[in-house]
Amino acid sequence: MRIVNIRETAIPLKSKLANSSFDFTEMTTSVVAVITDVMQDGKQVSGFAFNSTGRYACGAQMRARFIPRILAADPATLIDTSGANLDPAKIFAQMMRREKAGGHSERSIAIGTIEVAVWDAVAKIAGKPLHRVLAERFNSGKLPDKVSCYVGGGWYWPGQTIKDLQDEMRRHLDAGYTLVKMKVGGLPLDDDVRRLEAVLKVVGSGDRLAVDANCKFARAEALAYAKALSPFKLRWFEEPCDPLDFALLAELASVYEPPLATGENLYSTQDVENLVRFGGFRAGRDIIQIDPPQAYGIGQYARTIDMLAANAWPRTSLFPHGGNQMSLSIAAGFGLGGAESYPGVFGDFGGFADDARIENGTITLSDRPGIGFEGQAGLYKIMRELAA
Amino acid sequence: MRIVNIRETAIPLKSKLANSSFDFTEMTTSVVAVITDVMQDGKQVSGFAFNSTGRYACGAQMRARFIPRILAADPATLIDTSGANLDPAKIFAQMMRREKAGGHSERSIAIGTIEVAVWDAVAKIAGKPLHRVLAERFNSGKLPDKVSCYVGGGWYWPGQTIKDLQDEMRRHLDAGYTLVKMKVGGLPLDDDVRRLEAVLKVVGSGDRLAVDANCKFARAEALAYAKALSPFKLRWFEEPCDPLDFALLAELASVYEPPLATGENLYSTQDVENLVRFGGFRAGRDIIQIDPPQAYGIGQYARTIDMLAANAWPRTSLFPHGGNQMSLSIAAGFGLGGAESYPGVFGDFGGFADDARIENGTITLSDRPGIGFEGQAGLYKIMRELAA
Repeated sequence: MRIVNIRETAIPLKSKLANSSFDFTEMTTSVVAVITDVMQDGKQVSGFAFNSTGRYACGAQMRARFIPRILAADPATLIDTSGANLDPAKIFAQMMRREKAGGHSERSIAIGTIEVAVWDAVAKIAGKPLHRVLAERFNSGKLPDKVSCYVGGGWYWPGQTIKDLQDEMRRHLDAGYTLVKMKVGGLPLDDDVRRLEAVLKVVGSGDRLAVDANCKFARAEALAYAKALSPFKLRWFEEPCDPLDFALLAELASVYEPPLATGENLYSTQDVENLVRFGGFRAGRDIIQIDPPQAYGIGQYARTIDMLAANAWPRTSLFPHGGNQMSLSIAAGFGLGGAESYPGVFGDFGGFADDARIENGTITLSDRPGIGFEGQAGLYKIMRELAA
Repeated sequence: MRIVNIRETAIPLKSKLANSSFDFTEMTTSVVAVITDVMQDGKQVSGFAFNSTGRYACGAQMRARFIPRILAADPATLIDTSGANLDPAKIFAQMMRREKAGGHSERSIAIGTIEVAVWDAVAKIAGKPLHRVLAERFNSGKLPDKVSCYVGGGWYWPGQTIKDLQDEMRRHLDAGYTLVKMKVGGLPLDDDVRRLEAVLKVVGSGDRLAVDANCKFARAEALAYAKALSPFKLRWFEEPCDPLDFALLAELASVYEPPLATGENLYSTQDVENLVRFGGFRAGRDIIQIDPPQAYGIGQYARTIDMLAANAWPRTSLFPHGGNQMSLSIAAGFGLGGAESYPGVFGDFGGFADDARIENGTITLSDRPGIGFEGQAGLYKIMRELAA
């Protein structure tokens, strides 16, 4: 068996959302199809993925380096010992040839997206949902039938009133969510605290609300927010500052008692190791939110989990970024703390299977082979056309 | 005055070199032309740059995001208060719009290359060499007429004998260099030590020789090399390990007395701050080798120097990576420790002005306006065609 082609295309997100730090009006994502010669139901099996939201499309790197390296390799060197399926680790190693140390984000998003598409193909060829394949390989076969899922919402938009924000949160609760997240840092502290108190009236208590500053704050403001937020005992305070400012993160961890969170802007296992070693992050309390398709993919995510385990971090402290079917499969397969959801946001690139149900803060899993994009009509239309 | 166009093209390096970690056979670089409407000698003034060696071309990011953002801006918002020249800081800020925190290398190389090309135009419009413009703005006008310059050489190549390596080093000394660097880590430790001892016989003493492991070593091997290299009291031991493994760098600094060096694979001021804060790097002893065009450009480099100064680091500890006319101008303008040189390597993209002279370990500066690419016939041909 072999990969016969890999195609990619860049799609604009067409989002008008903004957080405290930037807006998404120019945002694009790369959709990838890894097309194999394995036939199922009269069709070639293809694996799909996209590079999540928040980082721009990376098709140029795929076209110039990673796709040619895979297609140039002897197909026999890219399959597993059974000979019947692809070996994601071998394909990853092929993509990493002639890559210099460091400089991760320049390639980790392109490589990770292709690698996750390979896993989609691997699971389809095995005839299993990806979450089951991952559970068998990386979690002793333990598989939940549902996964904790929270809403990444509470965005700023022009003309928004506090009642608008409360209405949004009520919709999330009515939809079955029990934990919601809102943005902070887009307004002065006093105004943000008023927004927060209004949302707390809707959700009931701090453990049902997280806040996200999207790396906005320098030291003084980060400390001011930490002091102001502390009494609310929120579920977590996400990305208070520059994601690489480990000294400031450690200082915040020393004065802010409730959980902190970060990780969606870390692209290598080494950066995450630096976070837990130098950033003061507290095993068992704080939250790490790596986005696997943006950080070299699932095989590297497994290595990051091993490194974290060696530092006494439980998997339940991991909530992968992304709000999509890839992160959901990974959260289920590895037995993580939960997944994020962006209801009604990012169009076809946010959300899960069309028949997924949210109940009491959890989301159901499907039995579709692979990641399960086939259950997302809008997104799968784009993917199917790419592989056609 | 305004920027009328920005063009880029990707050029293959066509190098067959290899270090301990990877080879350059697929390597490309992006050449950029920033074309202004300022007329000199009947021609539009253009600024040029390229993204140094070791990171792949980054034209896709330029075309998709950075060039359109600059060209979409009101030209009046991109010029300095005199109205007669471009303001690199304003152009940098325009490129950074809608960019998410972290993830530096995905954009820092594209942004830095354009920013350095803007500085080339700024200096040409001012009618001065770039090193003079930088000295006036960032170093109280202090300007050397020559700059320390060492050879980054001693590569591995197939069939190479120890005598070949000695002959290479003799050629460097005969050419006027007094400090040379050789690769380590491409052979077993014992073989590498034999190579090293052979080179020491040619150069005379350890303070005239540096070694570069190109991030090859994991902990055990890094410590073994540190122990073996320590007695030679080399000028420096470069990139012993992963550039982001600050814990291992700190451990090495605790057991290895002579200078360590790293930095060419750090792309943000925050990463460099983490190096000096957590990596055990010793102010006044160790060496930092950021590549400015790959790390957001000259304005960001100035901020990194300020951060380092606040941590008691002298400018003489900085040797910018690159081995080209850009790094030389920056080393001269900021008053750094010196510049790197790759004689006969990387074709048109390694080396300095054709009329530059090496004497007693220093290189002469030219009075050509701008960076001085006009003095490099082979390289300038590529640039002139791009701007035509």
